[in-house]
Amino acid sequence: MKNSNDSTVIDVPLTTGSSKSKAAASVASRQANAGGMKRGLGVFDFVLRLGALGAALAAAATMGTSDETLPFFTQFFQFEASYEDLPTFQFFLIAMGIIAGYMALSVPFSIVCIVRPAAVGIRLVLFILDTVALTFATSAAAAAAAMVYLAHSGNSNTNWLAICDQFEDFCQNISGAVVGSFVAVLLIMFLVLLSAFAIRNTH
Amino acid sequence: MKNSNDSTVIDVPLTTGSSKSKAAASVASRQANAGGMKRGLGVFDFVLRLGALGAALAAAATMGTSDETLPFFTQFFQFEASYEDLPTFQFFLIAMGIIAGYMALSVPFSIVCIVRPAAVGIRLVLFILDTVALTFATSAAAAAAAMVYLAHSGNSNTNWLAICDQFEDFCQNISGAVVGSFVAVLLIMFLVLLSAFAIRNTH
Repeated sequence: MKNSNDSTVIDVPLTTGSSKSKAAASVASRQANAGGMKRGLGVFDFVLRLGALGAALAAAATMGTSDETLPFFTQFFQFEASYEDLPTFQFFLIAMGIIAGYMALSVPFSIVCIVRPAAVGIRLVLFILDTVALTFATSAAAAAAAMVYLAHSGNSNTNWLAICDQFEDFCQNISGAVVGSFVAVLLIMFLVLLSAFAIRNTH
Repeated sequence: MKNSNDSTVIDVPLTTGSSKSKAAASVASRQANAGGMKRGLGVFDFVLRLGALGAALAAAATMGTSDETLPFFTQFFQFEASYEDLPTFQFFLIAMGIIAGYMALSVPFSIVCIVRPAAVGIRLVLFILDTVALTFATSAAAAAAAMVYLAHSGNSNTNWLAICDQFEDFCQNISGAVVGSFVAVLLIMFLVLLSAFAIRNTH
């Protein structure tokens, strides 16, 4: 605001052609402003993308290393719990891996959007893929959360017993992984919202 | 290229004012075109919203009426299954009710966007709420899908037995509800993608 006032004060004593050149200058400065805002949005997009990458990677790693073997065993059986026992957790691990991979692959395109704020096509493609990634990550996180809840509290109506009484470390691990995945979901949601604002101010 | 050459040939014998009026006409027709496209997007948005409303309502109704009582009982116990036995299905019912309510409430705003294609503020608010609704609906659908899978096939590692052998009708109902909710999720996803294109062509 202050900047544009200053430039007006300087421009006043100029010739009659000045109103035209002033208008052109104001358009140029507005465009520069929009470019700066878009660049800021692009940097924010880049940071969010790195955050989502980290959260998804952490969730996948926590889930993948979550096996626990109890320190007692019978002659025929050893008590062990790992993510491979439940298909939902396998899906969770694969989904978080895919999300992390997508985020890593999309980082260069995000940088292109910072360097060239006018590249609308890349933004649109990123927006569509982000929306799909959001749905995918949410479904994996929610399904795993439902299973973690069941593992913690069980269900007496269906005779499904809580397994967390025996496998405490395992349950702490899978709970942590679910928390990490929901952090990733939140970050991707902000990415999607941000993209819309970046697309809006394009022309 | 050929077209512009033709028009040059035709325009040569006209008065000098014609080039200006022609330019104005072309700008006006381009703006009318953009308005028409935005109106088309608005109508599509309206139809998708009604579809998501129907799908969410159907999912909620199917889940809500999914109790089954087996035709035999002991002295102390009657075998009965309903959505109330599993907290995940209660969450599913509430979430689908909220999604249906939001879709019904947003229909008038969608109509406003058809009548006044330049109303950007409403579009942005709808876009943000749609994104939140997408995440919410996806989490409910995915959590319920995980439980339905468990009810169908059980899990031998954790000694959770499949309950669908006894409660066939119940399981068919909850499966149908999950399918309905995923239809709603798909429609809301298209709504979000559509909104971005509508926002983009605003100025």
